[in-house]
Amino acid sequence: MTLRVAVPDAAMLGRLSSAVDKDVDLVVWRPGDAPLTGAIDLLVIPYTVSYDSLRSLGGLARHIQSQSLGYDGADQFVPAGVTFSNAVGVHEAPTAEMAMTLILGSQRGWPDVGRNQDAQKWERPTWPGLIGQRVLLIGVGGIGREFEKRIAGFDVELTRVARTARDDIHGIDELPVLLPNADIVVLAIPLNDETRGLVDGAFLDQLPPGALIVNVSRGPIVDTDALVAHVRTGAVRSALDVVDPEPLPSGHPLWSLRGSLLSPHLGGAVQSMNTRVDPLVLSQIDLLLRGERPKNIVID
Amino acid sequence: MTLRVAVPDAAMLGRLSSAVDKDVDLVVWRPGDAPLTGAIDLLVIPYTVSYDSLRSLGGLARHIQSQSLGYDGADQFVPAGVTFSNAVGVHEAPTAEMAMTLILGSQRGWPDVGRNQDAQKWERPTWPGLIGQRVLLIGVGGIGREFEKRIAGFDVELTRVARTARDDIHGIDELPVLLPNADIVVLAIPLNDETRGLVDGAFLDQLPPGALIVNVSRGPIVDTDALVAHVRTGAVRSALDVVDPEPLPSGHPLWSLRGSLLSPHLGGAVQSMNTRVDPLVLSQIDLLLRGERPKNIVID
Repeated sequence: MTLRVAVPDAAMLGRLSSAVDKDVDLVVWRPGDAPLTGAIDLLVIPYTVSYDSLRSLGGLARHIQSQSLGYDGADQFVPAGVTFSNAVGVHEAPTAEMAMTLILGSQRGWPDVGRNQDAQKWERPTWPGLIGQRVLLIGVGGIGREFEKRIAGFDVELTRVARTARDDIHGIDELPVLLPNADIVVLAIPLNDETRGLVDGAFLDQLPPGALIVNVSRGPIVDTDALVAHVRTGAVRSALDVVDPEPLPSGHPLWSLRGSLLSPHLGGAVQSMNTRVDPLVLSQIDLLLRGERPKNIVID
Repeated sequence: MTLRVAVPDAAMLGRLSSAVDKDVDLVVWRPGDAPLTGAIDLLVIPYTVSYDSLRSLGGLARHIQSQSLGYDGADQFVPAGVTFSNAVGVHEAPTAEMAMTLILGSQRGWPDVGRNQDAQKWERPTWPGLIGQRVLLIGVGGIGREFEKRIAGFDVELTRVARTARDDIHGIDELPVLLPNADIVVLAIPLNDETRGLVDGAFLDQLPPGALIVNVSRGPIVDTDALVAHVRTGAVRSALDVVDPEPLPSGHPLWSLRGSLLSPHLGGAVQSMNTRVDPLVLSQIDLLLRGERPKNIVID
């Protein structure tokens, strides 16, 4: 049996070709390219892809491997009979790393410190720092666990929140008693009907003055207008890798408001990403060669 | 016996007054103020102080408590008969926190990401990231230990270097074999005759292309001209909380060179500093009331 695997670029083909069995027919093909003769057993789609390009894959591909962790919105475009796996294990650690980058940056004075560098001004106000802060982590999935690992050494008071309470994890229904004691709130949850708009005006009103909202999940978990109104008055600060909408339009107040630190959805995208994507693809090939189902199927 | 303790400002006086014994005469006094009648048993000097103001303290003060960890240059100004303690336990953690801030910032694209924020540009190049990097920590004292604790969760390969080799710590004489394998070098050592100019052109030449130099110790550990020459060509990048000279003069290339991230000696200065200084002062008062010597004496 020959397995046909399509990857989105020659670079990945080059990296994988020496590692796969000779029974694997490895080709470069992307959604929208002219159809091949015969179906693709495993289609690795580009990291940055428009999900509506997947709607034409019925009959062309049997299984789709995404390079992203989030897959909100994909289900309406994946054709019947095609399965879809998200990229578990690729982005959780670098996304948690980005959350730490944004937290440390905000707590130690960025973007102001960066602006002073560009203005060549040696100014030394005292910034809050992270040590001793009360951190509320909302979400204990893959990103949340990697975040916990990273913040463990920073001498903070960490409180964890999940959809339902268990062990020493609080339930989301306890937010009204937790938010007034949170200096820093980290959002590490998928976007779905339950989480959309979770951080709204009422949520923000419960935080202590100057609390920091950190979002590395998906923009629409935060009500942007409510956040802007609260950052504008100094009631809260924000450090966002994801926003709603993306890309953030020029002129939007989150670019320039004091207390707003931004990165343009860079969470999982680091130069070492291939060192985690490639083994994932190889393990999916291995499962298929053994006649098993791919892992991490989230749309079926 | 009454103990006279002088603190540098009314704020510290206010914080300590309720915590000290009634036998303690707590006053606000700073080097340069008109002499008090009778000597000061314990003089807490300002966090930012010029050491030459200490030379007039002979007969006025018995023991000096600094609020800094470094004390390079203080010994020539502390009068005979006056002892001097540095602030062990106050700055190590926030300084290590600053090292992590600078590392994460550099590895995730600052100051460029900050410049794009100010230019309102949604640009998404792929930055190196920290995960998987080879980090060489030079110095395993207080700051080094706090740094180790903080970087432990970040999935890096950490190698430690001290003056002399022991257990799984390398000796500084092994740098020629260690530097070619270091993606990130963190300087966490005191400034003294052995460490001044340690990071010179020969040191930098041994690093792999694009390696990151992080300094949170003292500026003169790095030969600034050699560093500038190497950052200018892109051979190395730098993330510096301390520079030589300080303050960095306007127009200096480290303000603007691509690959240079700067913070203006903010290492230990966070808003929670008092929560670590106050207990230190109280413990010194306690030792003196019991007729013992203060701890952390570094100049005697």
